[in-house]
Amino acid sequence: MSASPKGFRFATVSAGFRKEARPDLALIVSDTPATAAGVFTTNRFQAAPVVVARENLAARPVARAVVINSGQANACTGDEGMTNCRTTLDLVGKACGIPAAEVLPASTGVIGAQLHMDKWREAAPRLAAALGQNTHHDFARAIMTTDAFPKVAERELAIAGTTVRLVGMAKGAGMICPNMATMLSVVLCDAAVTPEAWQRLFLDAVDRTFNRVTVDGDTSTNDTVFGLANGASGVTVEGDDLAKLGEALTDVLARLAYMLVQDGEGATKVMRVKVSGAVDDAEAEAVARTVGHSQLVKTAMYGRDANWGRIVAAVGRSGASFKAEDVVVTLCGVELFRNGQPTDLDFDTLLREPLKGRDVAVDIELGAGTGHYELLASDLTHDYVNCNADYRS
Amino acid sequence: MSASPKGFRFATVSAGFRKEARPDLALIVSDTPATAAGVFTTNRFQAAPVVVARENLAARPVARAVVINSGQANACTGDEGMTNCRTTLDLVGKACGIPAAEVLPASTGVIGAQLHMDKWREAAPRLAAALGQNTHHDFARAIMTTDAFPKVAERELAIAGTTVRLVGMAKGAGMICPNMATMLSVVLCDAAVTPEAWQRLFLDAVDRTFNRVTVDGDTSTNDTVFGLANGASGVTVEGDDLAKLGEALTDVLARLAYMLVQDGEGATKVMRVKVSGAVDDAEAEAVARTVGHSQLVKTAMYGRDANWGRIVAAVGRSGASFKAEDVVVTLCGVELFRNGQPTDLDFDTLLREPLKGRDVAVDIELGAGTGHYELLASDLTHDYVNCNADYRS
Repeated sequence: MSASPKGFRFATVSAGFRKEARPDLALIVSDTPATAAGVFTTNRFQAAPVVVARENLAARPVARAVVINSGQANACTGDEGMTNCRTTLDLVGKACGIPAAEVLPASTGVIGAQLHMDKWREAAPRLAAALGQNTHHDFARAIMTTDAFPKVAERELAIAGTTVRLVGMAKGAGMICPNMATMLSVVLCDAAVTPEAWQRLFLDAVDRTFNRVTVDGDTSTNDTVFGLANGASGVTVEGDDLAKLGEALTDVLARLAYMLVQDGEGATKVMRVKVSGAVDDAEAEAVARTVGHSQLVKTAMYGRDANWGRIVAAVGRSGASFKAEDVVVTLCGVELFRNGQPTDLDFDTLLREPLKGRDVAVDIELGAGTGHYELLASDLTHDYVNCNADYRS
Repeated sequence: MSASPKGFRFATVSAGFRKEARPDLALIVSDTPATAAGVFTTNRFQAAPVVVARENLAARPVARAVVINSGQANACTGDEGMTNCRTTLDLVGKACGIPAAEVLPASTGVIGAQLHMDKWREAAPRLAAALGQNTHHDFARAIMTTDAFPKVAERELAIAGTTVRLVGMAKGAGMICPNMATMLSVVLCDAAVTPEAWQRLFLDAVDRTFNRVTVDGDTSTNDTVFGLANGASGVTVEGDDLAKLGEALTDVLARLAYMLVQDGEGATKVMRVKVSGAVDDAEAEAVARTVGHSQLVKTAMYGRDANWGRIVAAVGRSGASFKAEDVVVTLCGVELFRNGQPTDLDFDTLLREPLKGRDVAVDIELGAGTGHYELLASDLTHDYVNCNADYRS
């Protein structure tokens, strides 16, 4: 395990937002103002912390702290929810001696209920007092809701002879168990980067990673990814070194994105759907998403079934342009479909072992151009239905 | 049970396309050439019978017969599949004394395998000999694959003092169990209608009914609906009476469409998702489809869970334009969400009984315009996963 980036301290406490007693409030403070970027849900219903974090970053792309609570989403809570969110930043800012405008909030949990402000008031000083007593691993654990395991990815790179460190923490995958929402992630870096360059690297890395995973196709009201770069390593990244940092950032987020799918509700598989030969990248994406979201493909993967017919049918309804006879479908390296017909390989025998593994490669060549796209998708299982069909009555 | 439209005869035989011995080949013959229309899958992979039926109808919108086999889809079968399909029409045409170009084919079953032509050759004369010995109910039964029950809807209407009869038969719902595909339907009418008018009524009725149901969001390679009007009642429908016939046709197809969702794989619910107040009908449709396809909404319905948060989240990611605070969500008549927040009703108590029923009304008002749309959708259940995750290995 590599060390955490320099100049960031962590704290987690149990504030009592959840039924069970466990850390449910987590804080990161940067010793100095960090260059900050954020990406948020595209859902039209935006949780209060999403609105407030957007405003803070729009005013100035700099942050000193990130505070995340689990147990309450503060989504669909109207004006009172907005006021409450701003009050939590005041409380945390005051306790830590940081301007509230430089604290970024995120929340995950039950939607539609107002925050328990009494608990926030009680917990904020304890949270500030705990700073430095916890690690980024504790942070990753405190923001979990229905996650089966905490999600952390670390990376070091040398720039101008000095070590720069990156660490990312994440929780959740899509919309999760009854009223539990949200994918949240924070990535920290101890290099110094200009806001413009950091924003560009960050958006590009998110687009290549978190935007290319799917569990159930649902987008929550609270999805948030923050990126902070504080310069504490003493290294300023600019010019050609930016590409190196971008690669490392993408690597960290890609590993977190994989873990989100791996921990998708009830998931037993991580399908890597790779589409090539499309007219353009947008059509390749349409094919990958249609296949990755297909209930029939997802259940076939769960069933370890080399069901090329379902993959082909999903490709065919994706809206992409191609000639049926040019399409080649390959599953775990075995070519299943070519020239508009199944190949004459003995799929079931060839794929018996490969389909028992967690990773399933679905390669689709359309033969219509150079567009390509890659998507990670989970399977659809009995446990998914168990998890989501909660007989409340 | 009302009588069948005049001038149509039915035959079903067991040709041996399926493992179990049961009728798997079904024929309808009209005593006189009937005005014919067809609607087909939009999937880019089109089964051979879809291509051939399209060609026959494009050449001349008239048909004497419809022949449907279950057990083999003749999809993804290349040039040999096309030749085989044309040969089956020759065989049936010759046995019945009808031009092959006036026979419309459809197939459902395992995809990727070539038709068993020897069995077709053996069965065609028996099929012709059986004409008139079967009913439209037998027909509906012979075209079943994984269907739990045969789907028939009948309707009479009086035009100019004479009875006109309509009957529709259908099978399937979306893509079904391992490698079983396809929604197929045939509607018969004994009025005389011009090809132009019949085409218009038929397309409009299909658009209002079959195009507004979803089980799993998948579109098969073989979906086909045929409509035949043969004039055997002696009634010619024209002018103002066309609207009456259109209403009756829509009613027949609407009842079949409902049955398709009711018999969706593993389904326990029929959700009627009604969206109003959208900017236009297209945005209303986008909302209805996002809600109706949402795995989280579908599992909540299965779980009898008044989970407004999942409905709201699906509305929010649909891409439609509206203000969050204008949206009203009502479930089985109980208002759950208004003014951007949950209402203060005791949902769980109020909805305990209504959510036990088969029919669940989901009403979504967007407050942004006059666009509206209605979609029937099934729920997502343990039996859906059982049915589709066939452990073949």
